[in-house]
Amino acid sequence: MFRTNTCGELRLADAGKTVTLAGWVQRVRKMGGMTFVDLRDRYGITQLVFNEEVNDALCARANKLGREDVIQIKGEVNERESKNKNLPTGEIEIIVSELTVLNASATPPFTIEDNTDGGDDIRMKYRYLDLRRACVRKNLELRHQMTMEVRRYLDSKGFLEIETPMLIGSTPEGARDFVVPSRMNPGQFYALPQSPQTLKQLLMVAGMDRYFQIVKCFRDEDLRADRQPEFTQIDCEMSFVEQEDVIALFEGMAKHLFRTIRGIELTEPFPRMPWSEAMRLYGSDKPDTRFGMEFVELMDVLKGTGEFSVFNDASYIGGICAPGCASYTRKQLDQLTDFVKRSQIGAKGLVYARVQEDGSVKSSVDKFYTQEVLLRLKETMKAVPGDLILIMSGEDVMKTRKQLCELRLEMGSRLGLRDKNKFSLLWVVDFPMFEWSEEEGRLMAMHHPFTHPKDEDIPLLDSNPAAVRADAYDMVCNGVEVGGGSIRIHDPELQDKMFKILGFTEERAQEQFGFLMNAFKYGAPPHGGLAYGLDRWVSLFAGLDSIRDCIAFPKNNSGRDVMLDAPSYIDQKQLDELNLALDLKD
Amino acid sequence: MFRTNTCGELRLADAGKTVTLAGWVQRVRKMGGMTFVDLRDRYGITQLVFNEEVNDALCARANKLGREDVIQIKGEVNERESKNKNLPTGEIEIIVSELTVLNASATPPFTIEDNTDGGDDIRMKYRYLDLRRACVRKNLELRHQMTMEVRRYLDSKGFLEIETPMLIGSTPEGARDFVVPSRMNPGQFYALPQSPQTLKQLLMVAGMDRYFQIVKCFRDEDLRADRQPEFTQIDCEMSFVEQEDVIALFEGMAKHLFRTIRGIELTEPFPRMPWSEAMRLYGSDKPDTRFGMEFVELMDVLKGTGEFSVFNDASYIGGICAPGCASYTRKQLDQLTDFVKRSQIGAKGLVYARVQEDGSVKSSVDKFYTQEVLLRLKETMKAVPGDLILIMSGEDVMKTRKQLCELRLEMGSRLGLRDKNKFSLLWVVDFPMFEWSEEEGRLMAMHHPFTHPKDEDIPLLDSNPAAVRADAYDMVCNGVEVGGGSIRIHDPELQDKMFKILGFTEERAQEQFGFLMNAFKYGAPPHGGLAYGLDRWVSLFAGLDSIRDCIAFPKNNSGRDVMLDAPSYIDQKQLDELNLALDLKD
Repeated sequence: MFRTNTCGELRLADAGKTVTLAGWVQRVRKMGGMTFVDLRDRYGITQLVFNEEVNDALCARANKLGREDVIQIKGEVNERESKNKNLPTGEIEIIVSELTVLNASATPPFTIEDNTDGGDDIRMKYRYLDLRRACVRKNLELRHQMTMEVRRYLDSKGFLEIETPMLIGSTPEGARDFVVPSRMNPGQFYALPQSPQTLKQLLMVAGMDRYFQIVKCFRDEDLRADRQPEFTQIDCEMSFVEQEDVIALFEGMAKHLFRTIRGIELTEPFPRMPWSEAMRLYGSDKPDTRFGMEFVELMDVLKGTGEFSVFNDASYIGGICAPGCASYTRKQLDQLTDFVKRSQIGAKGLVYARVQEDGSVKSSVDKFYTQEVLLRLKETMKAVPGDLILIMSGEDVMKTRKQLCELRLEMGSRLGLRDKNKFSLLWVVDFPMFEWSEEEGRLMAMHHPFTHPKDEDIPLLDSNPAAVRADAYDMVCNGVEVGGGSIRIHDPELQDKMFKILGFTEERAQEQFGFLMNAFKYGAPPHGGLAYGLDRWVSLFAGLDSIRDCIAFPKNNSGRDVMLDAPSYIDQKQLDELNLALDLKD
Repeated sequence: MFRTNTCGELRLADAGKTVTLAGWVQRVRKMGGMTFVDLRDRYGITQLVFNEEVNDALCARANKLGREDVIQIKGEVNERESKNKNLPTGEIEIIVSELTVLNASATPPFTIEDNTDGGDDIRMKYRYLDLRRACVRKNLELRHQMTMEVRRYLDSKGFLEIETPMLIGSTPEGARDFVVPSRMNPGQFYALPQSPQTLKQLLMVAGMDRYFQIVKCFRDEDLRADRQPEFTQIDCEMSFVEQEDVIALFEGMAKHLFRTIRGIELTEPFPRMPWSEAMRLYGSDKPDTRFGMEFVELMDVLKGTGEFSVFNDASYIGGICAPGCASYTRKQLDQLTDFVKRSQIGAKGLVYARVQEDGSVKSSVDKFYTQEVLLRLKETMKAVPGDLILIMSGEDVMKTRKQLCELRLEMGSRLGLRDKNKFSLLWVVDFPMFEWSEEEGRLMAMHHPFTHPKDEDIPLLDSNPAAVRADAYDMVCNGVEVGGGSIRIHDPELQDKMFKILGFTEERAQEQFGFLMNAFKYGAPPHGGLAYGLDRWVSLFAGLDSIRDCIAFPKNNSGRDVMLDAPSYIDQKQLDELNLALDLKD
């Protein structure tokens, strides 16, 4: 037996026991004739003591131990003189009588401490060492606990976890697929699932009633900051349900997770916000509602009421009110202007107005507006002395709102209103069914082509499809879309109609979704579902800035695993067997 | 709300309640002025009653219902006159007052009953209908329950479920990889994991201590009867353990599954059998020990003791004793001879000897042997009157044993000794470290190159590597290898030596496993693990003949998903983006 106890287990009550421990050398300290070694494993750190006077040879060997050596020791649990209250094992130490080096370690390329000297690149290359750091390891422990609780909750509600295949067919609609050449079917390819959407709908047709799966999904997209080519969904679907049933069940799941994982009891129903209101008040379909600072539309106040042509030409003018920021310096205001002008945001400028102590308003567009107009601005914004009003405008309403949204989030961060330990949840509902794609010159499904329109909006499908709202819902927490779903179409005729509106020829619809449409002929139940992004949930609970930190072996922005050095070139023999040739452009 | 209850829920105690149910029409029967409809969902079947005299119009609509229509009804729970004791809901029926057809069904291509008229091909094409059959659905329910229990058990033992990546690097060693072209890294490919073997070892180096994952694995092999290109492993690894620790923990898991899923309490430790003994007694490293009929070696008895040149030239002669089969007819014996001569088995012939009522022996090789020799045969085989002795021989010991193994299993089946409700578990241990590959002309790792040799056999690595045994173990149940694993090498020097014996150049070892060997430099703990085949476990518990039946959407023998019609051709645009061209041979 390699150990009687872990390094996180022993307490004062164990004093006097003879124990065997194994783990990694975290630190070696010499003090007088004593050598102290911190021994680490997943469960904690235990202090080992070697006494030169008692056993000179053993102590000499301990002095030679290096960081990250793997050792096994035998010794007696002893009450410490100077107790360490920050450590669960801090009241005891082990007086070592035997020491075995199980495996010596080369000097690690960075220090294995929470506060490491290793940069991002080197830590990813040696991810197996990075994972030894408690702050990283804890994220994986949290992830495990969360998936256990998800499964417990869904199992208790009668859901079956059903594995759907990873090697499926490619569907050109949506994001780009990763494909897998088939050796047994020359020239043909499987695709890795972007989500098991159609498969879970088939499981509903199959009468499985309540399905879930914690499942890897794949998208071959150019990677933005917080995307991974492979990510994990908590994928769910239910039969014989309406939107209200799905929302109740998955709100219950969120509450279960908050209670069991974070110890937070959420008793109130989550607020619901129509998509149109979310866009109007926050310029986002995933508003961060940890703080207010809602948008106020200012078209009535500022368009045509002065000589400022930018506003006079605008289709949208909106402002937010930053409390206590009237004292911002010129430099701070310039920073904000630079912020909104960055290419990722792309605004042309930023107008501000300070509400002074005496109630008057001083603005960057003073010369174009009378004080009367500016006081009306203050009133409309419900601003008080000390507030800073920030105003943006543009010709494209949606685009301008999104820019103002970025500014609002930035101000929220600057004012410390985005506390990672505060959670603000809501449902965004009543999404539009379609959105116009400039690129494709046609209406596209905002969620996917299987989303059910609101019953009361079905008549609009012919007359004004752009106004049709869907039975679609997103769960949002702290400005992050943690989950989303919809009621699906189960009526083959309605599905046909939807494909027509989306510009699918009958042939193309048949080619891409024929198997699903065919299945719907044989008695599809009304059904709907939801998918949670597991990586995002874990990041949120762990307070991480990137989903990468809660993934054991993530990929970098070029889709590479720098630890494994994957992807890589394969043998000509492998290519031949797959009936493939490389066709490199240069 | 679509339903107040499921179709499997209502009992006599609910009589008088007004309920709403939804489900599929299983059957419609007219009897006198009454119409009975069996309404089905995942949870059961409830009988609906429509009375012509009470509501003619409603009854007329019920008469028009077709099989698999999805309907919703409202009605009152009523005590049945003629109760059906085979059905949990058999004491009640619903007197229907409202009927809504939610979705009509076309006539299904086969009957949705346990005893269906649908052949394998049509059922796979319409798998979503096949899954509606209770006998298929139950396998998926069982699978869900088993994975829940696996997770409960491993979680209680401190294991963390950690997701490892699906897009990793290709390793030419072992079976053929499925590969995934990378668009962002032109000309390079990811591989889908054949197992997370190296990744879980890296997690041990990372100090994760106890890891598991229920995970999809992929092998691009020509598909035999019971193989799937994607299959699911319960993959586990532990640090600071010896073989005994791993065996104890996973024997505990097997017992937990038997107890919670099958209600079988296994109290005794599972027997252990060295690999060499398994081969000697059963000709298999996964013996079916539900029955005896062990091999008896007959070289002393039959080689050189008569004129039968087949035996006189043999390197191995072995027999099994089939109790009570002395009465086998000539035809039955010919069938057995044909069985062992089939190309899958490839034996040249079969010798038999009947032990007659008077104790004398009548054999197919009578003319070559004296009765004295034949009586010695009887004695050696411990045969009694009425027994049939079946003897095979050959020049290749292993090959002949394997042939005799097939015959033994066949006889076990014929004699009804392979009861699917009886479970016989054992550990096969002490596997050889290496096996000789005729094809490659070198020693190959029997498990994989990271398997730890038995400490006492390490000196043989230089002198007689073929004799080295490994710390490897398989769990076998009813002749199926349900899991297997080993203690891994954690010492970089020993690993180097292993690669040398396996004929890897340093360069090739570095290229293929460099990341692992490099990781081992930084303090790898002693570790070992095991992987269970989930599909096999579920099949075993469900009494299935094929793993296919416990997989929601399996592939056929050509690796095709006939329901999705995958794999398929992709667009030229997709190929271009991936820098690939097809290179079809004809």
